[in-house]
Amino acid sequence: MRAALLAPTDRIDERLALSSVTIDSAVSTHADFPGWFDDLRTRSYTEVEPAAIDDLVGWSVDPATGNIVHDSGRFFVVEGLSVAVPGGPVPRWSQPIINQPEVGVLGIVAKEFDGVLHFLMQAKVEPGNCNGLQVSPTVQATRSNYSGAHRGRTVPYLEYFFDTAEHTVIVDVRQSEQGAWFHQKRNRNMVVEVRGPVEVRDGFRWFTLGQLHRLLAEDDLVNMDARTVLSCLPFSGSGVRRVVSAGDDWFRDGLLRSCVPGEHSVHGNDEILSWISRARSATDVDTCRIPLNEVAGWRRENGRIRHESGLFFDVMGVRVRARGREVDQWTQPMIEAHGAGVVAFLVRRVGGVLHILVHGRAEPGFVDVVELAPTVQCKPENYRVLPPEARPPFLDRVLAAPPERVRFAATLSEEGGRFYHTRNRYLVVEADPADDLAHPDFRWVTVDQLVGLLRHSHYLNIQARSLVACLHSLLGAPAAGTSKAIA
Amino acid sequence: MRAALLAPTDRIDERLALSSVTIDSAVSTHADFPGWFDDLRTRSYTEVEPAAIDDLVGWSVDPATGNIVHDSGRFFVVEGLSVAVPGGPVPRWSQPIINQPEVGVLGIVAKEFDGVLHFLMQAKVEPGNCNGLQVSPTVQATRSNYSGAHRGRTVPYLEYFFDTAEHTVIVDVRQSEQGAWFHQKRNRNMVVEVRGPVEVRDGFRWFTLGQLHRLLAEDDLVNMDARTVLSCLPFSGSGVRRVVSAGDDWFRDGLLRSCVPGEHSVHGNDEILSWISRARSATDVDTCRIPLNEVAGWRRENGRIRHESGLFFDVMGVRVRARGREVDQWTQPMIEAHGAGVVAFLVRRVGGVLHILVHGRAEPGFVDVVELAPTVQCKPENYRVLPPEARPPFLDRVLAAPPERVRFAATLSEEGGRFYHTRNRYLVVEADPADDLAHPDFRWVTVDQLVGLLRHSHYLNIQARSLVACLHSLLGAPAAGTSKAIA
Repeated sequence: MRAALLAPTDRIDERLALSSVTIDSAVSTHADFPGWFDDLRTRSYTEVEPAAIDDLVGWSVDPATGNIVHDSGRFFVVEGLSVAVPGGPVPRWSQPIINQPEVGVLGIVAKEFDGVLHFLMQAKVEPGNCNGLQVSPTVQATRSNYSGAHRGRTVPYLEYFFDTAEHTVIVDVRQSEQGAWFHQKRNRNMVVEVRGPVEVRDGFRWFTLGQLHRLLAEDDLVNMDARTVLSCLPFSGSGVRRVVSAGDDWFRDGLLRSCVPGEHSVHGNDEILSWISRARSATDVDTCRIPLNEVAGWRRENGRIRHESGLFFDVMGVRVRARGREVDQWTQPMIEAHGAGVVAFLVRRVGGVLHILVHGRAEPGFVDVVELAPTVQCKPENYRVLPPEARPPFLDRVLAAPPERVRFAATLSEEGGRFYHTRNRYLVVEADPADDLAHPDFRWVTVDQLVGLLRHSHYLNIQARSLVACLHSLLGAPAAGTSKAIA
Repeated sequence: MRAALLAPTDRIDERLALSSVTIDSAVSTHADFPGWFDDLRTRSYTEVEPAAIDDLVGWSVDPATGNIVHDSGRFFVVEGLSVAVPGGPVPRWSQPIINQPEVGVLGIVAKEFDGVLHFLMQAKVEPGNCNGLQVSPTVQATRSNYSGAHRGRTVPYLEYFFDTAEHTVIVDVRQSEQGAWFHQKRNRNMVVEVRGPVEVRDGFRWFTLGQLHRLLAEDDLVNMDARTVLSCLPFSGSGVRRVVSAGDDWFRDGLLRSCVPGEHSVHGNDEILSWISRARSATDVDTCRIPLNEVAGWRRENGRIRHESGLFFDVMGVRVRARGREVDQWTQPMIEAHGAGVVAFLVRRVGGVLHILVHGRAEPGFVDVVELAPTVQCKPENYRVLPPEARPPFLDRVLAAPPERVRFAATLSEEGGRFYHTRNRYLVVEADPADDLAHPDFRWVTVDQLVGLLRHSHYLNIQARSLVACLHSLLGAPAAGTSKAIA
């Protein structure tokens, strides 16, 4: 293996690159993953069934507002949001939204074995997962988890993220979650490298980045929280170049160069920041929290809250019986989206460097008006009831792309703690070279520019971050072009 | 002049450095400033007198809420804010606050003459200024200004900031304003370099940075909006080093090195970002907009709204008759703070590099919980009525500093469009080398680290930004140590 030839290095970008080309190590081999995972799946007994909102235990519908609240006043509240976007294709609407103001921790413990960084991941059941277990960060903790409101067992490994003085912090940045469904939710994304011994508890396992990147390509396997934390790793092409060459694969060569700071980019960093400033200054998104029973166009029926069109999403409840989670039996409200969405980056080589077409997108739950989003992020069927001018630009180009231009395609789940069977088709699609894709709300950026922005909050939305993790996964992938199907 | 020896350069940091050491140029000499300014002061007829809130014309007190609103529904609203900071020295309070959701433009036009960057500034009257005219950016425009609600004349030069395609954008970043008095206000700070001819209208004048830096040291002369825009300029010590040497002045040598990227710093950039993430995750600032007539402890008397202690600030009204502004006669509500505040950076050389002690500070009006603030930022007299544990750390050390450790001292005005005779003593004070200043809510950072953060929103509060502009002004200042009085 090329990786083994490298001298030891302290540079984090080189250490990440080395981990990303390591598929088998002394502590963890890729071939052993299915056995470990299947065994856990067999042992993790979980039963999830839909429940009427009024039948939830420990949750009540506030008679005055209709809001769905926990009896302790903690966790989260499902309430209403009234949204005005003057000049937008849908200038005014109201909708249910989850309000969860506390900042939780999504943390991965990292540790070096034989010179290669490994990441401690958990096989975790979440009630919204369509398939039970998924590969998750070491820790997913809401503040309620660790301050006792959950009445659950203490969250294992959380201490590494509370007191980092003895460790090396590789990632520590608060990032947004779905701005369509959460009101200003942020989680603290962390990766902490530990030098001392780390106990591997049942349900946890060390992975190299190369292993995680392979798993990312499988449907519904690496969960959303793991994807967002991985996307914040300070990858750089300079590090990758020391451990892997693109060979004659022009796509990977362009991707590699896209990860190198200072390589050619269509827009300078300051130009991108200025474009974001302008978009955030010019866009008015006026939101107001309202009682859930005042959202217009939404109805309570069959124990759910649905839009009268039957589209968008439902607020529903689930009853969960689980083993291997903090508490063994509970009910909770969730959001269930209708139909799978499409989340895609259109990419193109410019001057030999792969560029990504990002969208400056306003979502009602964002803290700061606009974030960079995928080229396409939507549920196509919703546009049946919306005005034609609301149809997303580039959606049809993505859907019509021939298989040889689809560089990444996997169906991935959204957060299984809040979203029930809610999945999106994640795609990286090469643009047709003949297409003119100029649009004032979109810009071509390099991966390195996105990595730079990811050191800060509020720049990339959760869907774009998942796709950044997917792009990183293509750096160490087999050179043979494997074409993918869109759907 | 050393500056004249330089070859022409395209690097913005070198161009800024060159401008900062240029005191006299072909188009603008420092000695001509007083004559120009005094002439304008003579000609700018302005009369401002306090008025009872109920007597304001075009503004009403909403009978249901007590909020003070403009009849057009635009400009801004004075309303109430309820604030909870669990665990803080004052865990819960309510107060009046200004809500002005639109993002305005604070813009300076730049242009090169004879190889030196110049900045077009305006001598502008604001009703809250204690002395009428102050040196202001080329443009201070609320969105109401330029969309017609003001019924005023078109704002001159605004076009350069709307369509920047023909120009070079040097600064373009939204920054916060006083988080104690504004609810989530942000303005877009811009500097745009224009290549073509620029008409200099009456009341406007070209300045070098060296001239502006000298004026900054004078009381109440360079206004707050000018200071915040200047603070966002991408200064770097590498540029400064090419045009100026610190000689044997150890303070300036440390300051110069503090502006150089990659010089020694006590904490790495990622460590600072991680500390900010932690502070923003751990701090709960729960705010809720409430009707102004529901703020507790505040009373209406003599046409004003005052705190029952007589401290903090008043909401009051003014009647203005002016010439040389968008409209010639108007009334408006303002905020009047009681007593001058103290705004200070404690600084110290570490490894020969000047470091600044910044405070991770929560203010109720911040968009993102915590911003970096000066070491000390307070009105000392307010602490008479607050619990002793609320007394700001380091205040007494700043007030007790001997004159030879005071490197910058000037009384500067806050924004004269919203604040009436509201001034702070801005100080840069060397810490006593014997003092242990470790505190979990404070960190030592370099100027270069602050300049890096200033490319993004929500990192430095308005008072810290003013002090960054003051620090920059010391780079090109005379080498002779001029000691200053604290008050």
